[in-house]
Amino acid sequence: MTNLTLETYRQQFPALANKAYFNYGGQGPLPQLSLDAIYQSYEQVQQKGPFSGKAGSWVTEESAQMRDCMARELGVSAETITLTENVTVGCNIALWGIDWQPGDHLLLSDCEHPGIIAIIQELQRRFQIEVSVCPLRETLNQGDPVSVIETHLQPNTRLLVISHILWNTGQVLPLGEIVKCCHSQSQGKVRVLVDAAQSVGVLPLNLTALEVDFYAFTGHKWWCGPEGSGGFYLSPDALTTLSPSYVGWRSIQYDKTGTPVNWKPDARRYEVATSAYPLYAGLRRSITLHHEWGTTEERYQQICHLSQYLWQRLSELSDVHCLRTAPPEAGLVSFQLTNGLVHQAVVESLEKQNICVRTILNPDCIRACIHYFTEKSEIDRLVIAIATLNSSPTGLI
Amino acid sequence: MTNLTLETYRQQFPALANKAYFNYGGQGPLPQLSLDAIYQSYEQVQQKGPFSGKAGSWVTEESAQMRDCMARELGVSAETITLTENVTVGCNIALWGIDWQPGDHLLLSDCEHPGIIAIIQELQRRFQIEVSVCPLRETLNQGDPVSVIETHLQPNTRLLVISHILWNTGQVLPLGEIVKCCHSQSQGKVRVLVDAAQSVGVLPLNLTALEVDFYAFTGHKWWCGPEGSGGFYLSPDALTTLSPSYVGWRSIQYDKTGTPVNWKPDARRYEVATSAYPLYAGLRRSITLHHEWGTTEERYQQICHLSQYLWQRLSELSDVHCLRTAPPEAGLVSFQLTNGLVHQAVVESLEKQNICVRTILNPDCIRACIHYFTEKSEIDRLVIAIATLNSSPTGLI
Repeated sequence: MTNLTLETYRQQFPALANKAYFNYGGQGPLPQLSLDAIYQSYEQVQQKGPFSGKAGSWVTEESAQMRDCMARELGVSAETITLTENVTVGCNIALWGIDWQPGDHLLLSDCEHPGIIAIIQELQRRFQIEVSVCPLRETLNQGDPVSVIETHLQPNTRLLVISHILWNTGQVLPLGEIVKCCHSQSQGKVRVLVDAAQSVGVLPLNLTALEVDFYAFTGHKWWCGPEGSGGFYLSPDALTTLSPSYVGWRSIQYDKTGTPVNWKPDARRYEVATSAYPLYAGLRRSITLHHEWGTTEERYQQICHLSQYLWQRLSELSDVHCLRTAPPEAGLVSFQLTNGLVHQAVVESLEKQNICVRTILNPDCIRACIHYFTEKSEIDRLVIAIATLNSSPTGLI
Repeated sequence: MTNLTLETYRQQFPALANKAYFNYGGQGPLPQLSLDAIYQSYEQVQQKGPFSGKAGSWVTEESAQMRDCMARELGVSAETITLTENVTVGCNIALWGIDWQPGDHLLLSDCEHPGIIAIIQELQRRFQIEVSVCPLRETLNQGDPVSVIETHLQPNTRLLVISHILWNTGQVLPLGEIVKCCHSQSQGKVRVLVDAAQSVGVLPLNLTALEVDFYAFTGHKWWCGPEGSGGFYLSPDALTTLSPSYVGWRSIQYDKTGTPVNWKPDARRYEVATSAYPLYAGLRRSITLHHEWGTTEERYQQICHLSQYLWQRLSELSDVHCLRTAPPEAGLVSFQLTNGLVHQAVVESLEKQNICVRTILNPDCIRACIHYFTEKSEIDRLVIAIATLNSSPTGLI
């Protein structure tokens, strides 16, 4: 781990200077070093071009370095990485790339993000597929998500859509077991698409070992990169069957007259056209900074340690009901107020005190996120603010 | 027009300091003021959040201002604008959103960008549509593109795909007449999708008057905004029939439990999820800067005036063949060397002299772009470099 004190380390994140911050699952704070790297990239582009042979080589190299960096974090090879704008674009790539036939079945959990549900609703309409929902939310404190999923698979199921960490309750799903179950179905592999919005930057990951088919992630949440830079992993096996949908000049190989003759041989075939390339250096700098603090395993342990502290202290408050009955397995702590206060109003009131948490609508709760560099005193400040809200006559400031 | 001298005005673009620049059709130089605005936006996001009620309001407001700004430039209302990453994403939105039936016909010109051709090839495969190409390239110096298009329309044609300004030859197509022709077909409206990569930031535009259906553009070329910020216009009538394809949380309206219940009522339904919002302030600053110099009409006249000067001087060189026999109608000047030099090698040699032009593969030529702030001395430098290349024994430095 870094020799810096936590206080000094946190000074690298300008966003943390004026608030108690618990919205890493929404967006992580951008380190000053990352913003500097982005600025320098813009300067480089202008110095070299912006459109020239030199600038083109720079873009190719920056993109390759970004894919390499993401691939190392996920335990996969760079050829399996598509650069995207965000998690949802990655999910769109997987969902629109399957050759859906009328009557095919798609299974999703009851804890998926509305943005992903919207894609699936449109696919259902366009391709007349069957869609059903399996109840994973109720497995937060008891029961086995793998057997719930297995029970809901059908002979016509082609795809399971789940999150690695459920964005509403914070539950970590046993992804390896789920994939094994889906891949051993008698109709052939049921492919697994994972919304990794809350897992990348939190869990130590080896996607090769997990054997997952599709894994859509973003740089701007737990990795603390800039908004608008994400990625999509697909296994070499899945790549052979997934058609590109939104495509462009980055997807293709050309002949000598510039006519498209083939897709790129690797996951670049799902990339489209000009993006905000200068952001890549910023995201890489953020990821490097995390490694300077500690290994992925060390950071994950610290996240769990601090999350448990928050969960413990919240559990001690009489008007707070934590959704989990056991300590959190990652950085999300979701809880409800049992004194009748409206969660949205509470969140707004806390923001006025420069404490950032968010509401979740389903289940109706407040979510606080803990990163490895969260301070215990920051957690105390949140807990005291919630305790104080509860005991004041009007409930809100 | 601005009171600044041209030299002082150009100092606002760091990219122009160390080169003669003719690749505006590839990417425009980013003004320092725009980069500063981007940087300040990142600081704002960190100060307010990055994820909080305040930061969310800022994102909503920045996005609305960006759509307003684009809409004003195009002579349309903000509800018709989708924010995208680039031109190609806009074309994908239109192309994947039509309810293609087997046997439907799509007509495109023979001068479309390979990235757009790649989308159409995939649509052809997925939906068994008929695709044909109409020869517009040969209308550069004689003939009538409208009648060529009309001849190639079929009773089953549903969409025409063309560019407003052809990226290879620089020809400006008579878009209003083309749209009128396509909309008056007996089978009902043949919709028109326009690749506006080379027209936005160059031509004075009123898309409402042109009655075009779909118009896909980018901020990073002639508008000189940052790479990764573009837009897509669709007419209110086209919106009623175009289904969203890649979607996400930005596309939808929710009920109280956060479940998607409908698309957004306007063109935001084609937006997906988190983007590089801080870029919007940069693009708006670039557009404002252009207005500080002069009206769109004044800038367009200056582009034509300077393009004609380049075209004239190139035409005087014995080993240069300009594709156009008449002066250019916009900022693209394409030409061929008739002395056997390989165009790619020439472009690389010119880049070593800090002169930026590019090759086009079909037709095989070199393309030089002129903006309103191009200097005559810069044009002279390009012309002399080409003349010198031609007369040196090896042809290349």
